[in-house]
Amino acid sequence: MASEDHVDVLIVGAGPAGMMMSAWMARCGIKTRIVDKRGTKIFNGQADGLQSRTLEIFDSFGFADRAWLESNHMLEICFWNPDANGNIARSGRIPDSIPGISRFQQVVLNQGRIERFFLDMIAKESSIHVERGVLPTSLQFDESKAEDISPDSYPITVTLRHLTEEEATPKQTATAANGVSVSDGLFRSNLAPDDTADMIRAAELNAKANTVETVHAKYMLGADGAHSWVRRELGFTLEGEQTDYVWGVLDIVPITDFPDIRMRCAIHSADSGSVMVIPRENKLVRLYIQLSTTEKNADGSSTGRVDRSKINPEMILKAANKIMAPYKLTYRRMDWWTAYQIGQRVGSNFSAKQRIFLAGDAVHTHSPKAGQGMNVSMQDTFNLGWKIASVLKGTADRSILKTYDVERGNVAHDLIKFDHKFSRLFSGRPAKDLMDEEGISLDEFKEAFAKGNMFASGIAVNYGASHIVAKAPEADDRDANGINGVNKVTVQSRQELATGVKIGMRMPSFKVLNQSDARPWHFQQLLPSNGSWRVVLFAGDLTLPGRRADFDAVSAELAKPTSFLKRFTPSTGRYDSVIDVLTVHYGHRQEHTVLDFPEVLRPFDEVDGWDYNKIFVDEESYHEGNGEAYKNYGIDPTQGATVILRPDQYVSYVGPVADYASLDRFFSGFMIEQK
Amino acid sequence: MASEDHVDVLIVGAGPAGMMMSAWMARCGIKTRIVDKRGTKIFNGQADGLQSRTLEIFDSFGFADRAWLESNHMLEICFWNPDANGNIARSGRIPDSIPGISRFQQVVLNQGRIERFFLDMIAKESSIHVERGVLPTSLQFDESKAEDISPDSYPITVTLRHLTEEEATPKQTATAANGVSVSDGLFRSNLAPDDTADMIRAAELNAKANTVETVHAKYMLGADGAHSWVRRELGFTLEGEQTDYVWGVLDIVPITDFPDIRMRCAIHSADSGSVMVIPRENKLVRLYIQLSTTEKNADGSSTGRVDRSKINPEMILKAANKIMAPYKLTYRRMDWWTAYQIGQRVGSNFSAKQRIFLAGDAVHTHSPKAGQGMNVSMQDTFNLGWKIASVLKGTADRSILKTYDVERGNVAHDLIKFDHKFSRLFSGRPAKDLMDEEGISLDEFKEAFAKGNMFASGIAVNYGASHIVAKAPEADDRDANGINGVNKVTVQSRQELATGVKIGMRMPSFKVLNQSDARPWHFQQLLPSNGSWRVVLFAGDLTLPGRRADFDAVSAELAKPTSFLKRFTPSTGRYDSVIDVLTVHYGHRQEHTVLDFPEVLRPFDEVDGWDYNKIFVDEESYHEGNGEAYKNYGIDPTQGATVILRPDQYVSYVGPVADYASLDRFFSGFMIEQK
Repeated sequence: MASEDHVDVLIVGAGPAGMMMSAWMARCGIKTRIVDKRGTKIFNGQADGLQSRTLEIFDSFGFADRAWLESNHMLEICFWNPDANGNIARSGRIPDSIPGISRFQQVVLNQGRIERFFLDMIAKESSIHVERGVLPTSLQFDESKAEDISPDSYPITVTLRHLTEEEATPKQTATAANGVSVSDGLFRSNLAPDDTADMIRAAELNAKANTVETVHAKYMLGADGAHSWVRRELGFTLEGEQTDYVWGVLDIVPITDFPDIRMRCAIHSADSGSVMVIPRENKLVRLYIQLSTTEKNADGSSTGRVDRSKINPEMILKAANKIMAPYKLTYRRMDWWTAYQIGQRVGSNFSAKQRIFLAGDAVHTHSPKAGQGMNVSMQDTFNLGWKIASVLKGTADRSILKTYDVERGNVAHDLIKFDHKFSRLFSGRPAKDLMDEEGISLDEFKEAFAKGNMFASGIAVNYGASHIVAKAPEADDRDANGINGVNKVTVQSRQELATGVKIGMRMPSFKVLNQSDARPWHFQQLLPSNGSWRVVLFAGDLTLPGRRADFDAVSAELAKPTSFLKRFTPSTGRYDSVIDVLTVHYGHRQEHTVLDFPEVLRPFDEVDGWDYNKIFVDEESYHEGNGEAYKNYGIDPTQGATVILRPDQYVSYVGPVADYASLDRFFSGFMIEQK
Repeated sequence: MASEDHVDVLIVGAGPAGMMMSAWMARCGIKTRIVDKRGTKIFNGQADGLQSRTLEIFDSFGFADRAWLESNHMLEICFWNPDANGNIARSGRIPDSIPGISRFQQVVLNQGRIERFFLDMIAKESSIHVERGVLPTSLQFDESKAEDISPDSYPITVTLRHLTEEEATPKQTATAANGVSVSDGLFRSNLAPDDTADMIRAAELNAKANTVETVHAKYMLGADGAHSWVRRELGFTLEGEQTDYVWGVLDIVPITDFPDIRMRCAIHSADSGSVMVIPRENKLVRLYIQLSTTEKNADGSSTGRVDRSKINPEMILKAANKIMAPYKLTYRRMDWWTAYQIGQRVGSNFSAKQRIFLAGDAVHTHSPKAGQGMNVSMQDTFNLGWKIASVLKGTADRSILKTYDVERGNVAHDLIKFDHKFSRLFSGRPAKDLMDEEGISLDEFKEAFAKGNMFASGIAVNYGASHIVAKAPEADDRDANGINGVNKVTVQSRQELATGVKIGMRMPSFKVLNQSDARPWHFQQLLPSNGSWRVVLFAGDLTLPGRRADFDAVSAELAKPTSFLKRFTPSTGRYDSVIDVLTVHYGHRQEHTVLDFPEVLRPFDEVDGWDYNKIFVDEESYHEGNGEAYKNYGIDPTQGATVILRPDQYVSYVGPVADYASLDRFFSGFMIEQK
């Protein structure tokens, strides 16, 4: 009994990478199915750290506030090292997130809650729902149709089998990074009330059990983890290495006399290995504990897998106590535990012909201690989702899809490099003294940690030059039409006009005031993830004649029926559905009213009236201080600047306000004219 | 077919006052029923303004973030008056909320959403649910049992009748302040997704229809509106006056060339009356429009009710256009409308023997323009709920209940006075020139408005002296055992030790850092509404020998089995279930660890370990500036202070850190020793 279905996008895997992809599809109204072989969502354990950049992204989908509220906030890292007697002692402290780089700091919350936020958002904004207990069993990809964008072309065919409850349940444990679920009977369940429906649904799989269905898709995402079925079907591999270092992980409510148990701590003992302390929500603390005796394989090889049957919570706790001596650690409540062997591996390919994409653990695996895995995975599909959506909607051409492979490939390689260095530093033995060259000195460690924080925040990501990132190619970019097949830059940016708005990086956020009601907004709050590009007119001080003239001139160009704004927006779409124009002027709000601004910048709708949410001003607020946006963005109010932002908030272009032609040329480089 | 039920508290009316009472009961685990004669909750229109203080209270119940996110924030008030040509022109601006008085500013959101937040919180934290379409039909109160606190004494007996769907539905319109529901077919419904279940349930009333039930209650709340059935049954009255002024209210999405339509505006025309503009959520704007021709009753009397059949949206809009000329106003979408006649009335009694209480519109009605009604109503029961809960739980004696009548009675009288002045100023004619003594001058109006803002914020409430507010009785307090029957002050405060912590007023909020994890918290976030009193030890700079000695001495007293902390806490209760002790010291967090503090201040739990959420420090944070709590609270770090806070965050007492005896005497004045 095989049924058939046609979808625009098929997502395999409902972990964080698959969820982020679904969030984009929900926002952009793309016909999508998402399947996962596990019978339920996960409820605790797993990944836990949320970077500053990830929270900014969550905010663009409307649920950063939930994560911020429920999570534990990590403020400080404490370093503990052996003192003269060989006991551990606090040797230094640094802030956990670098002050000033984002309005969000790193927080910790279990992956189950993060998946919950996605599920709620997706359910609220679309009819997409995760189909659990569904296993893909065959994949056919007709490569000859890869560039065929006709509406009835479906190059991908996948067979899906609905599992029985029994089949779906063990898979969950198997994908749990080798962890063993802790019985809820013995320990407190931290299942949140809004997860109960999922638990109930898990027992209802059998209705569809063993049915098979054929799905035809235009695009497909393999977000199905380190053992990715999609990757294997495509014949792609993960390349890299394993190490001997084995670590245990305990999520417990600790009972201890260690005074910094609610701080993030990097603890190095003299001879017994290291512990990383990650304080979490609901009184939980995660401990990453180096297990000093690593069992070898039967043949004695050191690079193979460790015998995990020897690892259990008791032996991990014992190792922790040895490292943390003279402090004592025990617990009455455990939430989750696992163990892993450090390794760094990266995928050979990120897509097959830009039709079938891989993301998350399917293309990069590494050690969990830097809290990167879930974040980078979600950021993979945050990069990809809007691109696929705009190609499917016919507003952009397929050339933009190649930037996914290059942009995220570079991030994955940087991640692997970072983790390689970071995990070795962490697993190494501390130096006994200045002459101990094999040991790792405290200074070396602290310096690497502080530097790593910038990388770990996710804010440092800097995408290379392409037709959607108008910057000068750097020395290490490969060439031409050229650079891994990515189209070349079409316009010349002038970075010096907005020195704080780095082309290729995400738009920083400072507060500006709405011209019409004086309300302060963080600039990023004006950039929700809805698939729209943004042109931001930093008009400067409009009481200066030159500024007013440039501003009026570019507004007049934008208002013409031939402008890029009109040419690329479908007649059925709202005025801001493809390109949203925002104005931020500088000076005194009270000297202007919103109606003084050109109509094209605050368009009229016959039901809603004028749009009061497009014109902003950089000035002091009544209650929330002065965002000093122009100063922070490095824009001279006597000069102004125009900025183009991608739908994912990354900066595409910086140029003069008067230069309408460059804007038009930029968008003409990849957008499709509408009838 | 009559069934019987016994409850601790019966609440009649599920509007904001009834909801706030239910929230307390849910938090404190009190057996409660809440009934409302309407068949559904309300979904739009009605009251809309949320004061700073109300948002602080919402935060103590965990949902201020939802209100803050969904609401429109009002930042500025613009004054518009006739210019030399008789056209209206902007004549001034002031901030809408006074900067610095609260971390929340006034926002606007329809009453239906606010009731939703309560419903969600109550459902999450208890089994209390609102029973709709239920009408009380008889009330018996055995006054002889009023002071009987034995567990099986139920002085109140009420008969409840479950209405049919037909009976319940018209009641909704009848209670809608004389407004007429706008058909959802013609206009956009702004029903939020999480309200749909209520709509469905509304059609399911008939199962219980026409059944009758007898409920025996220990306490009862009449929160059943201006036409309160409970008030009438008790024979209590509302006293006050009506005026001739009739106002219309439109909730519309405006289409207009008036430039300040997204600001709160007070518009006075030369001869056509006044308009108040209240910008709202979802592009809505509420307009309060003075209707210049007020119909008289048939007998020509001017104080009677107006003939409402003559009032409709078209004539209200016409009046608005006349007042706002030369600007034009129209709309395509209307959400709600109503009309009202201004009057101020206050209840003769706030309770019957402190067993049956009245709150909200049942004891005070006035004009809606200052956005006070819903706020003061919720604050009535915010004052009452914890008192009833602690009496029911046997931790406090009944004497504290009398403070409700006095504290909220005074607030109601202040409100009536404020509204009387405010509404007359607003309905009056603007002065033509300096010689026009009958008209209201712009300066007079602006000054009254600015002063009114402090009152309107809800922050200015200052409860009088009693055994739970240890301050010197003021001149206008009546005397002795004495003051309206309220017990007198038992201890002497020393206000000068904390000049910013005003006894009788709510505790202001500034940021402090958690000693154990460096996280900044607004102090009010440490004061959730859970029924606990708080003793806050502002220990001062503990590196000073005197400070350390006082701190250690009082900690030693607290730790004794005979301390008030132990005597008044049931053996089955957590250590902080009746009195929660918080420490805020001054100085450098990094010079201390949480384990340096006396155990009684960070108690041990055999499952959860040490309590890491009791010790805080006033110091600069990494990311959120310096709260400067000691400076803002007016506490000298070389001296310190101890503060007692009521469960509703109002300040009971300020004294020296070393004075343990006063703390003990204070609590002994009304708390009940536990076995």
